[in-house]
Amino acid sequence: MIYLDHNATTRPAPEVVTEMVDALERAWANPSSTHEPGQGARRLLADARTRVARLLGCSGAELVFTSGATEANTTAVLGALALAAERDVARRRWVLSAVEHPGLLALAERLRERGTPVDLIPVDAQGRLDLPAAGRLIGPDVALVSLMGANNETGVLMPVAEVSAMAHAAGARLHVDATQLAGKAVLDFAASGADLMGVSAHKLHGPKGVGALLVRKGLALPGLLAGRQERHRRGGTENIPGIAGFAAACDRTAATLADDLMRMTALRQQLEAGLLAVPGVKLFGQQAARLPNTVCVRFGRLDSEQVLGRLARAGVVASSGAACTAAGTQPSHVLLAMGEDAEAARAGVRFSLGRETTAADIAHTLAAVQRVVVPLLAPEAMAA
Amino acid sequence: MIYLDHNATTRPAPEVVTEMVDALERAWANPSSTHEPGQGARRLLADARTRVARLLGCSGAELVFTSGATEANTTAVLGALALAAERDVARRRWVLSAVEHPGLLALAERLRERGTPVDLIPVDAQGRLDLPAAGRLIGPDVALVSLMGANNETGVLMPVAEVSAMAHAAGARLHVDATQLAGKAVLDFAASGADLMGVSAHKLHGPKGVGALLVRKGLALPGLLAGRQERHRRGGTENIPGIAGFAAACDRTAATLADDLMRMTALRQQLEAGLLAVPGVKLFGQQAARLPNTVCVRFGRLDSEQVLGRLARAGVVASSGAACTAAGTQPSHVLLAMGEDAEAARAGVRFSLGRETTAADIAHTLAAVQRVVVPLLAPEAMAA
Repeated sequence: MIYLDHNATTRPAPEVVTEMVDALERAWANPSSTHEPGQGARRLLADARTRVARLLGCSGAELVFTSGATEANTTAVLGALALAAERDVARRRWVLSAVEHPGLLALAERLRERGTPVDLIPVDAQGRLDLPAAGRLIGPDVALVSLMGANNETGVLMPVAEVSAMAHAAGARLHVDATQLAGKAVLDFAASGADLMGVSAHKLHGPKGVGALLVRKGLALPGLLAGRQERHRRGGTENIPGIAGFAAACDRTAATLADDLMRMTALRQQLEAGLLAVPGVKLFGQQAARLPNTVCVRFGRLDSEQVLGRLARAGVVASSGAACTAAGTQPSHVLLAMGEDAEAARAGVRFSLGRETTAADIAHTLAAVQRVVVPLLAPEAMAA
Repeated sequence: MIYLDHNATTRPAPEVVTEMVDALERAWANPSSTHEPGQGARRLLADARTRVARLLGCSGAELVFTSGATEANTTAVLGALALAAERDVARRRWVLSAVEHPGLLALAERLRERGTPVDLIPVDAQGRLDLPAAGRLIGPDVALVSLMGANNETGVLMPVAEVSAMAHAAGARLHVDATQLAGKAVLDFAASGADLMGVSAHKLHGPKGVGALLVRKGLALPGLLAGRQERHRRGGTENIPGIAGFAAACDRTAATLADDLMRMTALRQQLEAGLLAVPGVKLFGQQAARLPNTVCVRFGRLDSEQVLGRLARAGVVASSGAACTAAGTQPSHVLLAMGEDAEAARAGVRFSLGRETTAADIAHTLAAVQRVVVPLLAPEAMAA
């Protein structure tokens, strides 16, 4: 099987499994306990914090371990909105991009129903953020701007620095969902301009069930879960084995990141070149700066389910849009926002490479496309 | 080392580690992905749900996997309060016992600051809930009553059935924090009278970072984390390795629970008898029905830190109160609620047994008490 769905999740690295087993068997006490076994778990936690912070470019004090990116992003948004409203009741608006992850858009929908003013920043046909529109939307009543670091479906990179400047000029804070950046870009929270950042371990060969919320020093963000842990910012006994695995994943990522990014970029270009040689293929975000690992195309107007089923039988696992909506037959909200019609937005096929992906995998994938997709495409391509 | 702090956390069972490693290495795909690796992870999730639900006495549809008891309890409380307020703006009050876990009391404090009316039900000198007081507090403006199944410090069992009847008669819902019941009692959500129940895996030899919220069928509880997972009740990629470990812990618990409860009860009685033979020892909740594993005492008015330090050097690991507050030097809020003064409430020493505890461990512990604590106690006991 050739797994090209690394934006959905990644295989835990062997080092990750080893550290988790070690934590489960040896550092299983409660890190809040004052006795020696508890303090041993606490030392593991402190060590892991240093290691994760190093990869993410933040200080240990800015790092809050969470159960994943969803909790991190939810905490960031609810906390920042509450904090702003405390100081100025008129500052209540949340502005986020129209192509955020479905989980964040679901939160936006829920808050809107409860009376929070919410605006979506559009993107252009290449999936790039509409910066003039962002400038018009980010006014003095905005509490928070949320922007993903890179889009999970198209890989298009978002202008975090520019939006940070806009947000701060308006007195708003910036939250970056960096879920898709970790492991696929150099992450530097300190230099990013973000006040809040969410990250997930399982996107960088770490375990599921753990992630991080980065909180800019000095920002007194109220937590989502009350309790004393994580400097009163996240209650609940710490997920020590998950955090140990996260740290191992960060170390492993840092060790080869530069090489991995170069190799993935080369392989992505190889895949894109092969796909673009197929008549009727459209590459989404072709003119935009994108992640080194993500290729999102449609084959004419062929429904993605049909394409993915055939590719899977040929040993290639890819996906349509976010795994979190993959079970549905909804057109992609990202492709719709880019101006595709509903049929075309149901045709998106995402190949997302990982550091384990080889040139042979790409060659096999392109051969499979020729063998099982192109025959369907001929009449389709004419119509596209 | 003799570990007698099982109410803080427990050692993951070997079966738990094995199933987690298997999930990390083989079922690492995203269960929301429609491809075969994703569906494999989805099957693991469904299987785990059945196994956890079996131990907890709920249906699979009533079970929402969370990152632990804190998230489960927070979701229960915020969700139930929101649900009640939606239907009747006058029904806003939250009533909970004065001896709930510090994390839940921190949530109560936070909600009170934001304007939610909150009342605490007192306990008597034995740590038993004051039922007449509960009856007076649970009126027509109460949205939710929260009651722990058993107290984590004293092991005193709470009258869930009686309070359920009171809550339901008043049109309120009942939330039970069952963190300390799991693995130490037969849990039967269906028969419990609770509408909502929180459980943590790491208290029953499962991993940290995973737990469950049980939601009575038909209760449309709003989730804390938006997203499609867990039937729209808990967004975020599921913690597959943690959930696999939780399921393994539940199976292992179920396999020997009856025997374990009998053996722990006998060992607890042995430990209590030995401790009560020491002059000046007070056993908290002595006349109350208690968990089979928990013995909370004070040695005269000796500060618990002194006692615990000496015991630790003699190879016995116990604790003072909840691990979540153990780092502080605060007197126990549980012992204060039972009418102890501040000095006495700083003297509580909790021995909490596990299914791995042996008769030799108890004999060693009692010998250590004689050797390292009793000499301190002689003049103290006179004063107590």
